[in-house]
Amino acid sequence: MKINEILKAKKRISKYIIRTPLYSNLEINSIYNSNILFKFENLQLTGSFKPRGAFNKILKLNKNQLKKGLVAYSSGNHAQAVAYIASMLCISSKIIMPEDASLIKMKKTKDYGAEIILFDKDKVTREEIARKIVRDENRVLIKPYDDMDIIYGQSTIGLEIYEELKINKINPDIVLCSCGGGGLIAGVSLSLKYFYPKVKIYAIEPENYNDMTKSILKNKRIKNKNSKNSICDALMSSMPGELTFKINKKLLSGGITIKDKIAKKAVKEFYEKLKIVTEPGGVIPFAAILNKDINVKNKNVVCIISGSNIDKSLFSDIINL
Amino acid sequence: MKINEILKAKKRISKYIIRTPLYSNLEINSIYNSNILFKFENLQLTGSFKPRGAFNKILKLNKNQLKKGLVAYSSGNHAQAVAYIASMLCISSKIIMPEDASLIKMKKTKDYGAEIILFDKDKVTREEIARKIVRDENRVLIKPYDDMDIIYGQSTIGLEIYEELKINKINPDIVLCSCGGGGLIAGVSLSLKYFYPKVKIYAIEPENYNDMTKSILKNKRIKNKNSKNSICDALMSSMPGELTFKINKKLLSGGITIKDKIAKKAVKEFYEKLKIVTEPGGVIPFAAILNKDINVKNKNVVCIISGSNIDKSLFSDIINL
Repeated sequence: MKINEILKAKKRISKYIIRTPLYSNLEINSIYNSNILFKFENLQLTGSFKPRGAFNKILKLNKNQLKKGLVAYSSGNHAQAVAYIASMLCISSKIIMPEDASLIKMKKTKDYGAEIILFDKDKVTREEIARKIVRDENRVLIKPYDDMDIIYGQSTIGLEIYEELKINKINPDIVLCSCGGGGLIAGVSLSLKYFYPKVKIYAIEPENYNDMTKSILKNKRIKNKNSKNSICDALMSSMPGELTFKINKKLLSGGITIKDKIAKKAVKEFYEKLKIVTEPGGVIPFAAILNKDINVKNKNVVCIISGSNIDKSLFSDIINL
Repeated sequence: MKINEILKAKKRISKYIIRTPLYSNLEINSIYNSNILFKFENLQLTGSFKPRGAFNKILKLNKNQLKKGLVAYSSGNHAQAVAYIASMLCISSKIIMPEDASLIKMKKTKDYGAEIILFDKDKVTREEIARKIVRDENRVLIKPYDDMDIIYGQSTIGLEIYEELKINKINPDIVLCSCGGGGLIAGVSLSLKYFYPKVKIYAIEPENYNDMTKSILKNKRIKNKNSKNSICDALMSSMPGELTFKINKKLLSGGITIKDKIAKKAVKEFYEKLKIVTEPGGVIPFAAILNKDINVKNKNVVCIISGSNIDKSLFSDIINL
């Protein structure tokens, strides 16, 4: 049973991660005429939800595997999580990052002690580099999303939300969650759909990277057409993962696509009204509410805020817009 | 019994305010070799702890008193709280604010629908203006701190902290709390000292406004010498209140004074490591830890973060320092 795997993941990782707040603000609720419950997963260790899945994967490795070290590829949030865990466990990590990765994400990954390998997205894929390192150095590859241990780790977010909602006797109507490769939303859906079979869960994706939304509509995995840029650097995956798509097509009610301009507006609104720092890719579930892309009137809406790693200069620019 | 008054306050206000998160971060704890528990009262409605006391006071007024309207004086956080509550209850509020009040505090107070009366601190006292309004218009004065209803309202913060600590089986060793007129720390001390008689509670004050620290040392209320400026605009009270001093001299273990430069450093560190927006006067309890003004090694330290209303330009300047 999947729920047992999720409960086991919780037991495995809970002392290593932060039980993040589920927060509701009456002023915000009255603006949007809704009961919005923010899960502040941007206040997780390393500034994103990623350590949950990565801890769940890495804590299952045996001593010999750990000794060989880890390798991962990531635009930055998974990178930091793997680098942080490696530093906790005093093992080696190599992280493959795009040359144009966010400065703060690169710096923090390096500060945790990882060795960073930069690559040019136009010339080689990160998967190719990873495969070579696994072959040559016997390192364990920690995938960013397409791995059931990673997905079950992210499911613990849903478990925490359920525990809080139960105490407060609230039944969620809608769940909004960002979607890159789809690991976070697949994990959260597995736990929340178990407890609330009727809840509607939506994948929130940036413009040009709405592959999960399109894939669900066409019932097959669709690749994004081009390699345009997005302000949501954490969500620029080329297509849904195999495992994540299998879960998401079954459990999600659809997807919503957010323009960069609206993502910026959400970062600003979160700073002004909620006093919380977010990165664009982490706050787009709230952007969907802000932009009235979904009707939340008189509904209980769980809004997962998943990351806060934003470059200082971009953040300053946005709040002064 | 005071604890009964505090429990009554909780019952009275709890559905109108936010139960704010008590948050601990393993990365921060490992940097400071301590178990720091942040009470995020800056995530309270209106961006500071003030609605707790103000709600407790105002909800006790009778219909006739409410009809006459409210008057309050404040540098801005109490102002917003009173204006917010007046707008909730559809009653009138007049708020006396210094001409040089923070822009965001003035704007938000006005946005809640209050009438603002500006005054020149060098020419007249805010108490004089308030007395005249009370006399002429029969409005009820909502004092910022020197009122037991206000103090008991702030005590509910200590109650929430106690409830969380009990679940997690943690006994606090130290409590750090900012201090202007002393209402917040008096309130918090009343509840926390009831549950933890041995806990050491320290008032954290800005340079030039350390009147509570000096008053406790001399065992009488001491006025600050001059009207120098401080970056902690929320904490520039001239001397401790009568009631707040009586409580604080009995319950506090001492005070710590923070320079503007260190307060700024704390705002920056909070942005970078904790992704939370704070105002200088709200984050100085953390500044005391950051600046090693107190030994927190291997201790359970409750650190109350009490406000987040900071002008955008100052915030941008500080995070780009």
